[in-house]
Amino acid sequence: MNLGCPYGTHRVINPKGVFPQPAQSIDNDFSTLYDNEILIDVEVLNIDSASFTQIKTQAEGDSEKIGQIILETITQRGKQHNPVTGSGGMLIGKVKAIGSALHNRDLKVGDRIATLVSLSLTPLRIDKILAVHKDIDQVEVQGEAILFESGIYAKLPADMPQKLALAVLDVAGAPAQTAKIVKPGDTVVVIGGGGKSGLLCLHEACKRAGVTGKVIGISHSKAGVQRMRDSGLPVIPLQGDARDALWVLKEIERLTEGKLADLTLNMVNIPHTELGSILATKNKGTVYFFSMATSFTAAALGAEGIGKDVTMLVGNGYTEGHSEIALAIMRENPRLREIYESTYA
Amino acid sequence: MNLGCPYGTHRVINPKGVFPQPAQSIDNDFSTLYDNEILIDVEVLNIDSASFTQIKTQAEGDSEKIGQIILETITQRGKQHNPVTGSGGMLIGKVKAIGSALHNRDLKVGDRIATLVSLSLTPLRIDKILAVHKDIDQVEVQGEAILFESGIYAKLPADMPQKLALAVLDVAGAPAQTAKIVKPGDTVVVIGGGGKSGLLCLHEACKRAGVTGKVIGISHSKAGVQRMRDSGLPVIPLQGDARDALWVLKEIERLTEGKLADLTLNMVNIPHTELGSILATKNKGTVYFFSMATSFTAAALGAEGIGKDVTMLVGNGYTEGHSEIALAIMRENPRLREIYESTYA
Ligand SMILES: NC(=O)c1ccc[n+]([C@@H]2O[C@H](COP(=O)([O-])OP(=O)(O)OC[C@H]3O[C@@H](n4cnc5c(N)ncnc54)[C@H](OP(=O)(O)O)[C@@H]3O)[C@@H](O)[C@H]2O)c1
Ligand SMILES: NC(=O)c1ccc[n+]([C@@H]2O[C@H](COP(=O)([O-])OP(=O)(O)OC[C@H]3O[C@@H](n4cnc5c(N)ncnc54)[C@H](OP(=O)(O)O)[C@@H]3O)[C@@H](O)[C@H]2O)c1
Repeated sequence: MNLGCPYGTHRVINPKGVFPQPAQSIDNDFSTLYDNEILIDVEVLNIDSASFTQIKTQAEGDSEKIGQIILETITQRGKQHNPVTGSGGMLIGKVKAIGSALHNRDLKVGDRIATLVSLSLTPLRIDKILAVHKDIDQVEVQGEAILFESGIYAKLPADMPQKLALAVLDVAGAPAQTAKIVKPGDTVVVIGGGGKSGLLCLHEACKRAGVTGKVIGISHSKAGVQRMRDSGLPVIPLQGDARDALWVLKEIERLTEGKLADLTLNMVNIPHTELGSILATKNKGTVYFFSMATSFTAAALGAEGIGKDVTMLVGNGYTEGHSEIALAIMRENPRLREIYESTYA
Repeated sequence: MNLGCPYGTHRVINPKGVFPQPAQSIDNDFSTLYDNEILIDVEVLNIDSASFTQIKTQAEGDSEKIGQIILETITQRGKQHNPVTGSGGMLIGKVKAIGSALHNRDLKVGDRIATLVSLSLTPLRIDKILAVHKDIDQVEVQGEAILFESGIYAKLPADMPQKLALAVLDVAGAPAQTAKIVKPGDTVVVIGGGGKSGLLCLHEACKRAGVTGKVIGISHSKAGVQRMRDSGLPVIPLQGDARDALWVLKEIERLTEGKLADLTLNMVNIPHTELGSILATKNKGTVYFFSMATSFTAAALGAEGIGKDVTMLVGNGYTEGHSEIALAIMRENPRLREIYESTYA
């Protein structure tokens, strides 16, 4: 058997010995496959929001330039690993070949799957860009990709459109983590609550905090606040700029009679909101950073700088059962599904 | 009363509205003081290890250049906020003036204190660099600094030399957090165990995990491994490069019969060790990143990329009682105190 490393280190070109994610470049020549690799016919790339925002800015909103920037990255790195934000996204495609060592997987050639590992570590070759969908961070392509043995994926569910499932699966980690850490009676603040992952987190926060809890959502735009209202969830919506840490503090103090939040979830797609998140949270409370624009030092030194004893979590995109938890929200909350279908899919 | 913001936003010059830590530049003109500020006669700067390493490299080890780089940063930013690493350090000095709004503090003019908030947010003016101590990341200076109302500090203890106390207080957050999260019977891996904060964490990990636990320390150099041995703690020492994630995985598998660690503490001063830390840890275990060289995206995407369900914590430099917990180690463990006195003080 011609087995590669389960984590894909056999495809790392530079620097040698590191894993595919931190690597500068990885091998996207698929003429030879390892027996523990899955080859995928790629149909859609779902670029991570922080990454797409950066690419769109660099391209000045021009669709063709967006495509060029993506192609350049893949030519240089063998993967869609944004060199500025460090983040990736995910893809959808059909299984084209399954290595012989993976025959016991519940998967067959032709199955349509979404990869749940970041594009920032997925070997990818693009032959043609078919369409750039600027409003939903998705790019239709012709190309191929590899999933390593340790790579997780989800078969696309039969009861919802593919684009909807992809949009949900893209941010599946956040609502699943929310479900696991919110306790009955908690006061929860979701910064970026009107966004793609924020809305799912609001659903889980309301469900788990229950009638004795309090859930506050912050969004920057009127449209984001409207999405929170339209969700039908018992959320207190706030409109404002979370980079203005003092504004966040004052508003959350006002809405919690000075008690602040037990848990703050950061779901924004822009930098400089670490301090607002920390200030919104009570001493011994928890701040959960899901945003890829989070700066580690700003969080660590921010809390120290104001002498705040909070637990700060790095959002892990994976947690057991995350795809099931996230997809179930679309079945539980038809109003959220409607918002999702009209906004992100 | 002429009260400033408790968090010091009144001294931010650019950009307006942000807090002192993320600010580009802050006001270090101390001719006018606010009534909730403490003025300090600065004696010693203790530069954060990640920052000092960067400065030393840029200066090619030349003491005079190190001083110049520090002065340039302070001229530009009004604070010792390393523009490359984003981190700061702390300082020691004598209280020169206490604002009238803080008269109820247990503090008087002339007291020698260490600031426990980062230099990256502390208004600082340096009139003269007296000496650069390259081996202990300390710089003797003549100058002044301000502590804001929310800024924490520790009076220096009478039963140990000032340099020793400063070295311990600099990394006080890490052992205190370790004390709070290690449970009896835990298997704990400390990456960077032979370093300044690592050694204190090893002490707390051994103490809290107890005789039914297992504590493994990793250091890069022979000297670091020797420090772990010399500590007299029941630690299993490993020598190697934690950037080699596969090596870390194999060694920790070997030493734990494949079970891996309940808790991994990352205490290194160099980048690219996120994945090794995640791989060393079992599913549902915890990784605690104290290193300022941690990349948020490398941690988040690293765990997702290998489908590992671990809780990842951002090391908060502050937790209640951290200075007491850290200083107590010097009283509890004379061999560690000896290492500390000869290596860091
Ligand atoms: N950890 C992981 O594995 C993982 C996976 C997927 C995504 N992510 C990250 O999660 C984050 C959110 O992703 P998403 O897809 O949910 O993004 P999104 O749909 O663009 O949502 C962003 C949210 O942040 C809000 N926001 C932006 N600027 C703000 C400001 N200054 N003040 C207050 N709110 C502000 C937006 O408000 P408006 O809409 O009202 O402007 C919106 O509610 C991104 O950083 C992404 O990279 C992480
Ligand atoms: N969160 C906070 O508030 C806070 C406060 C203070 C410090 N810190 C951070 O904590 C970190 C450690 O600080 P420190 O003062 O303890 O630093 P330190 O004394 O320089 O110790 C660094 C340790 O990392 C080890 N190391 C370096 N490269 C390694 C590699 N490739 N593989 C394995 N081990 C390696 C060193 O091993 P050898 O000595 O054997 O080479 C040493 O044991 C720094 O990043 C610092 O910025 C954070």
